[in-house]
Amino acid sequence: MLKEIVLVEGAGFCFGVKRAIDIAFDVARKHKDGVFTFGPIIHNPQVIEKLKDLGVHPIEDFHEKNIKTLIIRAHGIPKEKFEEIKQFGIEVIDATCPFVKKAQNLAAKLASEGYQVLIIGDREHPEVKGIFSYAGENAFVVSSDEIPILNKKIGIIQQTTQPISKVKEIVNKIIKSHNEFEEIRIFNTLCNFTSRRLEATQKVAKEVDVMIVVGGKNSANTTQLANLCKALGVKTYHIEDAQEIDRDMFEYAKKIGVTAGASAPQWIIDEVIDKIKSLQIKEEQGHAE
Amino acid sequence: MLKEIVLVEGAGFCFGVKRAIDIAFDVARKHKDGVFTFGPIIHNPQVIEKLKDLGVHPIEDFHEKNIKTLIIRAHGIPKEKFEEIKQFGIEVIDATCPFVKKAQNLAAKLASEGYQVLIIGDREHPEVKGIFSYAGENAFVVSSDEIPILNKKIGIIQQTTQPISKVKEIVNKIIKSHNEFEEIRIFNTLCNFTSRRLEATQKVAKEVDVMIVVGGKNSANTTQLANLCKALGVKTYHIEDAQEIDRDMFEYAKKIGVTAGASAPQWIIDEVIDKIKSLQIKEEQGHAE
Repeated sequence: MLKEIVLVEGAGFCFGVKRAIDIAFDVARKHKDGVFTFGPIIHNPQVIEKLKDLGVHPIEDFHEKNIKTLIIRAHGIPKEKFEEIKQFGIEVIDATCPFVKKAQNLAAKLASEGYQVLIIGDREHPEVKGIFSYAGENAFVVSSDEIPILNKKIGIIQQTTQPISKVKEIVNKIIKSHNEFEEIRIFNTLCNFTSRRLEATQKVAKEVDVMIVVGGKNSANTTQLANLCKALGVKTYHIEDAQEIDRDMFEYAKKIGVTAGASAPQWIIDEVIDKIKSLQIKEEQGHAE
Repeated sequence: MLKEIVLVEGAGFCFGVKRAIDIAFDVARKHKDGVFTFGPIIHNPQVIEKLKDLGVHPIEDFHEKNIKTLIIRAHGIPKEKFEEIKQFGIEVIDATCPFVKKAQNLAAKLASEGYQVLIIGDREHPEVKGIFSYAGENAFVVSSDEIPILNKKIGIIQQTTQPISKVKEIVNKIIKSHNEFEEIRIFNTLCNFTSRRLEATQKVAKEVDVMIVVGGKNSANTTQLANLCKALGVKTYHIEDAQEIDRDMFEYAKKIGVTAGASAPQWIIDEVIDKIKSLQIKEEQGHAE
């Protein structure tokens, strides 16, 4: 009997990543030279190679080269960097994800209205560094433990890919630790696509025997998907491509789930599914022999 | 050995009640006739009798008598009633507590800005009925169980005398039950005096053997004080005046705490303390005999 493979709806590229890649290819076609992306446009080597073929290279420092046009990737960048680039006379093409832009704008709005801004997220993540730069003097990034309260008016926003459960947990802690607040204002800056992918992955993980999570090992949202599956008690493999698929992964499994992070292109997901199917066919043939 | 008596700081009349009584006596002195209070100005018969001596009577229906001036008590009244009274050509003296006024104003502000307003409190309390009238179409009063969410923008305010612990509990429930919120905005409309009195009462209750809680049996904030003390495991008596003090209450007690709700005047608190002291003196004399 063939094993059943269930692909999670919304697995792979999210809206913001798709949009940033489209913008990059569009700019590449229109400009002959001097186009760069500020950091890799996406954590995916194949996409970056394709852009290089069109003359678009990722750079880490915009002072170095003769840059005419610089594309800002989906994560966004800190305010100061943005302004510095503009002062350099470089044309900026902003491919910051609209969800991230919303979080940056709300951070700025809250700071200008006198709120202490708390950002729920990972302080090392580039997206959070960008949002933080808009959040004013008293801003803090909070992940779990320490929540410094300096102001009676607290504004709370989130890294777009945080799970809602985490947001609830931390908001609850803030309210608990903060007796004398005047106002607590929580804006939901979570990305719908991320939360839907998490929910859909959770649903599939509950009904399968093995979960295959596709995406960069350094991709935070992919790691989050893998951790979610593990927490649900299902056997979980976080892989970057079809090469890593191995027959032993599916021993005794009747139903296999596949999900993928926001930086996994469709062709890699397709290859993974084809590989699983091919293993089974070989297995069936083996039995038939 | 004499028993030690500890009086809770801030016991008795709160700022809003003191202010309303001052306003009522002031109006009584300035106006010769036609002055009424809309409902009893305070849940305390002695104060009401004194005002009656000055010609100021409480009424329940402003249509009935030849009313020239009507004093609104600290709890406030619903918006519609306020407007109706004004249309009657009656002079309105608004002694609504500034903390309650703030909650009414924030309810109106949130409603006008498109938030669904949730009021944490007791829906039968006159203060809450007043605040509710300003809170727009989708408003709800929530106490514990049912929290109806109709809108993606939620504004939360509180009856001024709710304990902060209750607010935290309910905000937590709202966040937990409400996945797809756009914004949750919590204004702290708690009365400082009430929360300080609760805190101070809690502190004393933890170090005494018996707590005497003075205030009207129908006073919500006094009942809250009594419940707090009981919850802390201390022997607690909720009394309205010194008459109810009884020697049996203090058997084996070395340290006695006294607190009082917002409608308990200072003279009643003094009488209670004098009564406890006199019992002890009698007891000492008894021992000496």
